[in-house]
Amino acid sequence: MTSNLQSFYEQLMARAKDLILLHSAEALVHWDMETMMPPRAVSLRSEQLTLLSRISHKMSTDPEIGRLLQAVTADLQYESLGEVEKRNVHLIKKNYEEQTALPEKLVSETAKQQAITVNAWKQAKAAKRFAMLKPDLEKLLDLSRQAAEILMKVKQTRTPYDALIDIYEPKMTAEAIAAIFNPLQQGLKGLLEKIQASPNQPDTEILKRAIPIEVQWKIAKALSQTLGYDTTTREAGGRIDETEHPFTEGYYDDVRITTHYSPEEFASSIFSVLHETGHALYEQCLPQQWKYQPIGTYCSMGFHESQSRFYENIIGRSREFWTNWLPKLKQIAAPTLDNVHLDSFVRAINHVKPSKIRIEADEVTYNLHIIIRFQIEKELFSGKASVNELPELWNQKYAEYLGVEIQNDSEGVMQDTHWPSGLYGYFPTYTLGNIYSGQITAALTRDLPDWHNQVIQDNLNVVRGWLIKNVHSYGNLYDPADLIKKITGENLDAEPYLRYLHEKYSGLYGF
Amino acid sequence: MTSNLQSFYEQLMARAKDLILLHSAEALVHWDMETMMPPRAVSLRSEQLTLLSRISHKMSTDPEIGRLLQAVTADLQYESLGEVEKRNVHLIKKNYEEQTALPEKLVSETAKQQAITVNAWKQAKAAKRFAMLKPDLEKLLDLSRQAAEILMKVKQTRTPYDALIDIYEPKMTAEAIAAIFNPLQQGLKGLLEKIQASPNQPDTEILKRAIPIEVQWKIAKALSQTLGYDTTTREAGGRIDETEHPFTEGYYDDVRITTHYSPEEFASSIFSVLHETGHALYEQCLPQQWKYQPIGTYCSMGFHESQSRFYENIIGRSREFWTNWLPKLKQIAAPTLDNVHLDSFVRAINHVKPSKIRIEADEVTYNLHIIIRFQIEKELFSGKASVNELPELWNQKYAEYLGVEIQNDSEGVMQDTHWPSGLYGYFPTYTLGNIYSGQITAALTRDLPDWHNQVIQDNLNVVRGWLIKNVHSYGNLYDPADLIKKITGENLDAEPYLRYLHEKYSGLYGF
Repeated sequence: MTSNLQSFYEQLMARAKDLILLHSAEALVHWDMETMMPPRAVSLRSEQLTLLSRISHKMSTDPEIGRLLQAVTADLQYESLGEVEKRNVHLIKKNYEEQTALPEKLVSETAKQQAITVNAWKQAKAAKRFAMLKPDLEKLLDLSRQAAEILMKVKQTRTPYDALIDIYEPKMTAEAIAAIFNPLQQGLKGLLEKIQASPNQPDTEILKRAIPIEVQWKIAKALSQTLGYDTTTREAGGRIDETEHPFTEGYYDDVRITTHYSPEEFASSIFSVLHETGHALYEQCLPQQWKYQPIGTYCSMGFHESQSRFYENIIGRSREFWTNWLPKLKQIAAPTLDNVHLDSFVRAINHVKPSKIRIEADEVTYNLHIIIRFQIEKELFSGKASVNELPELWNQKYAEYLGVEIQNDSEGVMQDTHWPSGLYGYFPTYTLGNIYSGQITAALTRDLPDWHNQVIQDNLNVVRGWLIKNVHSYGNLYDPADLIKKITGENLDAEPYLRYLHEKYSGLYGF
Repeated sequence: MTSNLQSFYEQLMARAKDLILLHSAEALVHWDMETMMPPRAVSLRSEQLTLLSRISHKMSTDPEIGRLLQAVTADLQYESLGEVEKRNVHLIKKNYEEQTALPEKLVSETAKQQAITVNAWKQAKAAKRFAMLKPDLEKLLDLSRQAAEILMKVKQTRTPYDALIDIYEPKMTAEAIAAIFNPLQQGLKGLLEKIQASPNQPDTEILKRAIPIEVQWKIAKALSQTLGYDTTTREAGGRIDETEHPFTEGYYDDVRITTHYSPEEFASSIFSVLHETGHALYEQCLPQQWKYQPIGTYCSMGFHESQSRFYENIIGRSREFWTNWLPKLKQIAAPTLDNVHLDSFVRAINHVKPSKIRIEADEVTYNLHIIIRFQIEKELFSGKASVNELPELWNQKYAEYLGVEIQNDSEGVMQDTHWPSGLYGYFPTYTLGNIYSGQITAALTRDLPDWHNQVIQDNLNVVRGWLIKNVHSYGNLYDPADLIKKITGENLDAEPYLRYLHEKYSGLYGF
């Protein structure tokens, strides 16, 4: 690197570091709001967060970043930069161009309308009246469409909806998603029919046994520790708290998860802890040498979800894991689960049953919930469907794909916070995550055919080590399509995931 | 107000609001560091805090603030502004002039040297070797002197040390402090001699009874609730957590306190909760209509301390308070304190005994610890004493004023974090707080001669209401010298405080 290029690059990186630090501080302030904040502080907190986001928007659109980007990319030596440096410049440029393209007025109006719509959603959901949400949802959707149309030009996507998808899953398109979701849907349909036809249905009574919350705390700590997430030692980089909706928030050495404890549903907390720990391990195991650099982050939301789903389902609902862990669980929860057998436990936690609520769905039907949302979003943004038609469209698809009858919009189209929060193009990443997790598991089996035995023997570190080397260590060096190829040698493909499901559930349900 | 003046004023206030919000977010990030942060995050947190303080310094020195100040104060209608508006402008101007006067290099070097010196202090204290701290303390003191000399010109104080005192206690001077500390010291000396000469010494055995930490949690919540600090309801604006060194942090609707629980010293947590609740109530009860304005804050550190000391000592160590509260304490701690009598309890918590450690000192000797620190700081900044001489000077004064022999510098000059943290001119505000609390109590008695009975009858809200009306409601409208006059009709005067001590301790020790 010439000394000029070096200097420009370093100045760019210093600004990127500031933004990363500011975002991590914002994330902390948000975490506090969800976990620790006294209730009276709601309005103060909203003012604080608005200010921080205003400062962050100002910093990321500072024209000096544009000048530095120009200077770096126009430099005669630019092509001689390494892969890492070029990717950093690319990520800074992408963020700068997108942020500067969006008019400040649109950004602040959207933020305001989001807050209003979330509030309307809460009230409408409580009242079970979609009409109360409709006007605000229409306004928000309109603002999101405006942003999407601007971003479409910057990102050079074919449609506005693709520009939104690209925020969460870079370079992914609705067309590519449909091309992979359609066969997945068919495969799931066939699988679900076999499962439902099986006379061999599990008994889920054991999951209803009451376990006190303080015991569930201990289970959560021990479980996450088993996976390699440290919340207890003097070197701990994590912690577990309780919130109504579990989430993970943090950066490298400070990544926190939350879970929700319900005395009558101990399994719910177990799987949310496994899920969030998967997210947390991804953040914590990113390359240390990339800390404070744009590449020092996750690849995409889909990849993030692949890590949480891997630990929640592929590990966490496997017979191997519980062969090792059921005795521990019994010990911590003694005597409540003393007479529980491995077989019945594994069958109970893998009970498949179509339901109305996404976040309560089992591993198999979960993806049908997502496919419905993706198909509706696509129609919303192509203009084929209006907000008005959402409830009917929703109920119709739930009847068709899942065979359930939605009684009211609170258990239907209003169940999730995503749309009222302005998150469009986000839902498909959940199922992309499952698909990635299937491909990643196939690659893991290719490299370590013995990994199931390691899990039985409590050597979770073997699996974790493989994930670090093959997934986490790439940070954000590649777009997701390239990363999945790098890891597996294959393109995005739902087949390994479907095969995994078939093998597992044919065993469990005996078909 | 003309529309021009109005517009300039509003622009200034918008900037002041941003700064207030940013500082409140910084305070939250700091609170998290002390309470919740996983240990691995130390270095990340330091980077986050450095960035936030860099952003805040940039925002507070933005030349646009200077232009707006110029425009407002040069406006022909300026004199027609109200008291509140003028005070806001004054406070913004003071902050702007002081912040811009300090070169950025000096500010960042000082911040760095503070971190280094605190670290050196921790090691030196553990090793009981002042020599390990000396070089860094000298460097830090040198940087603080440079800042003090610059601030002296801006603030137009007579000495650099006065410029530092002014940061914490506006317009206060070392001369004025000495003029009030000298008679206080004499008064305390006489009082201490009488107490020590009394044959009637209390038995403190009851304070050594073990109370489990979870019971002490309950005591803390109930105590702070009694004082009017809400940590439990759906309107709560506070919370209590545990840290090694108790502190209060927050703003208006989100003011949090911490305490330290030690099973063998339950009284320690009781009095730290009362102390910190006093601080918290001041912050929470500032006028709501001044939120986000410069006047919407406390008057001075001394006044802050007057509120904490009032609740810790004047209320919290009074027979009246425990007449009402000892039965509650017994109930929560049952059966540990079942056979404790009010008399012995009140005498035990008011045990006076000269000691080496400030934070463990009783109400009477505490001020001698502060007077020693003030006298040494004064000599340090006037050049009469060097860092080298600190230990000797310290030990000599402790022998003379308190009659204790310091065995090593860890229980001597290195016991406090203030000097290694770069806080010079801060210590005197602790005793100023006690003096204010004495004057405030005299004014309270003048207005509500019956207040002691209200405390006995659990009507703490009568006292709280009086404090809100007579102290908190003034926010930062006046400098401390003016505020104490406003409240009491008198100038700063140690006599009411000394009189309070004499009356109380002559009763307790029978002289």
